[in-house]
Amino acid sequence: MKVGKQHYRSIWFNEDTNRVQIIDQRWLPHEFRVVDLITRADFADAIRDMWVRGAPLIGATAAHGVAEVMKADPSDASLDETWEVLHETRPTAINLRWALDDMRNLLRDTPVAERGAVAHARALEICDEDVESNRMIGVHGLEIIRKIAAQKKPGEVVNILTHCNAGWLATVDWGTATSPMYHAVAAGIPVHIWVDETRPRNQGALLTSWEMNSHDIPHHLIVDNAGGHLMQHGRVDLVIVGTDRTTAHGDVCNKIGTYLKALAAQDNGVPFYVALPSPTIDWTVKDGVAEIPIEERTGTEVTHVQGKLADGTVTEVQISPDGTPGGNPAFDVTPRRLVTGLITERGVCEASPEGLAALFPERVLD
Amino acid sequence: MKVGKQHYRSIWFNEDTNRVQIIDQRWLPHEFRVVDLITRADFADAIRDMWVRGAPLIGATAAHGVAEVMKADPSDASLDETWEVLHETRPTAINLRWALDDMRNLLRDTPVAERGAVAHARALEICDEDVESNRMIGVHGLEIIRKIAAQKKPGEVVNILTHCNAGWLATVDWGTATSPMYHAVAAGIPVHIWVDETRPRNQGALLTSWEMNSHDIPHHLIVDNAGGHLMQHGRVDLVIVGTDRTTAHGDVCNKIGTYLKALAAQDNGVPFYVALPSPTIDWTVKDGVAEIPIEERTGTEVTHVQGKLADGTVTEVQISPDGTPGGNPAFDVTPRRLVTGLITERGVCEASPEGLAALFPERVLD
Repeated sequence: MKVGKQHYRSIWFNEDTNRVQIIDQRWLPHEFRVVDLITRADFADAIRDMWVRGAPLIGATAAHGVAEVMKADPSDASLDETWEVLHETRPTAINLRWALDDMRNLLRDTPVAERGAVAHARALEICDEDVESNRMIGVHGLEIIRKIAAQKKPGEVVNILTHCNAGWLATVDWGTATSPMYHAVAAGIPVHIWVDETRPRNQGALLTSWEMNSHDIPHHLIVDNAGGHLMQHGRVDLVIVGTDRTTAHGDVCNKIGTYLKALAAQDNGVPFYVALPSPTIDWTVKDGVAEIPIEERTGTEVTHVQGKLADGTVTEVQISPDGTPGGNPAFDVTPRRLVTGLITERGVCEASPEGLAALFPERVLD
Repeated sequence: MKVGKQHYRSIWFNEDTNRVQIIDQRWLPHEFRVVDLITRADFADAIRDMWVRGAPLIGATAAHGVAEVMKADPSDASLDETWEVLHETRPTAINLRWALDDMRNLLRDTPVAERGAVAHARALEICDEDVESNRMIGVHGLEIIRKIAAQKKPGEVVNILTHCNAGWLATVDWGTATSPMYHAVAAGIPVHIWVDETRPRNQGALLTSWEMNSHDIPHHLIVDNAGGHLMQHGRVDLVIVGTDRTTAHGDVCNKIGTYLKALAAQDNGVPFYVALPSPTIDWTVKDGVAEIPIEERTGTEVTHVQGKLADGTVTEVQISPDGTPGGNPAFDVTPRRLVTGLITERGVCEASPEGLAALFPERVLD
């Protein structure tokens, strides 16, 4: 999407320099830095140390990483070692494994001499597929926003609340939860976004706010505590969030705090939608609360906050007394009974086994 | 309560130095500073600039302020001017006005020569009344904790979640929501406290964590997003919060985000209690969501976070991009249907007109 007047993806191949380039997201929102990824170590660092993050973008980066290595050394050993090196950077990321498997399966059947070119083409294709998938989520989500706008006075703003960063920086472009917002803006529907800061890592404050700012979409940053009050007073028309993993029954695992917003949405009759590309659906899991293990991260993410000092230096401050430990569950599960609908690249469905099965009949197990 | 091995109140009269002393809370949790309040300007500064905060403590500080002024100049003009000067420091604080009115009404009927001594005695009494009121909240709240502990295996910990700071630093001693916790510890019931950090001002991280640390009560600091997940997984046995204002019908206005925790408690069958001294009840208001105006504070409280740098300097960092505005509603209202009970100095009652009327029959209007 736009950064100032220029359109960017989060990863791209620069035809002038023959280099893969990314936005190094560690410096956002305080600095916009573009860097080249050249060696296998560059790609591994970029994924492991979160220069890039977000499931689709991690997959796309790994695919480009395999392609760049293949251009230099297309041997089987190189291919296998690259799979291993990149996979171990973030071993629990499903899209990472999917992209690496996709590339390796394709390349094993490809003559060594052609592997560089084939891998390059496939990496570009993986990126384009992601963009198209997110674009379609926006096309379908736009219809939801359009209906809400139609119930308002002409020109009245549609207020959308979102949690965490399910934006274009987590994908190759458009984002998932944000794609309907960009489509609404393009369609001339006035929107205003309530951006949850999303403690402890502040992805909303750092990334979603930056995206909204960069694309010139009206928004306010709010603390994670504020959404319920805003809904009680009619100041939220709908909620759209992303998801890290959605079960075959429609339960939604997403950044910690999503469940609280879903409860407030239900209590106030506010529609609560989850935007997801279908690879995010885990067809092997049914009951999300019972079955999905939730990562407990380091307590220092809770006791410390990163930000910019008045002099521009980016640093972190400790908010708690010495000796107080932090508890840090990273995700929660929103039961499907609280979800109004799932917005996928194939359309919008009910968050239920039947809803998902109707959109993805080929994926239904047993 | 305890700071290290020593017992403190949040305000006290030092008999050795003949000075009113307070804990200057602006430096907590990173520094523990005790300061003298001597002149009227000292007391006004302390209230206005939040060296002290919390409704009961503000009232107690104002009462001591009137007393100290009366010792130096007990004239009617001095009394009226002190009322004005102290009242305008935080004009919306109900306890401030109550304490100032109480002092002035008493002193107007007191001969000028006796005003210093009478005011001094009354200020001490106001403090002691607050302490006793909070102690009784703890006595009644203890019974709730005791019943939960009785349903567990011997020695198993009772997990209590609290939001914001309704601790002894907001009162003269004990606190409101925390008083039952201290009583449980004294009764030998093992407790563990989940302390919500309470963005945007982080009163949980800064103050409640410090209180728990100082009194050696096991606790974890969590982000405001985490409570729902913890409740889904049986890791919270009850919630106790304070309140800034409770309506005659039992709706509870408290720090922003309280409502979200109440929703999660109801969704998971976790008891949700509100601890309050009766002066916090606003008998003139019934429907809290409809009738209570919610203060919107400056957006910089959202976009900036205060904390301690690695070198010990306390400063603030900006977490958002330049240009992103913050939205900052400071309180929300939890409807009474989500409240299991109100813990008052007179006992525990249902959050309903009938429940409150039964405990406070003399206060019921029409």
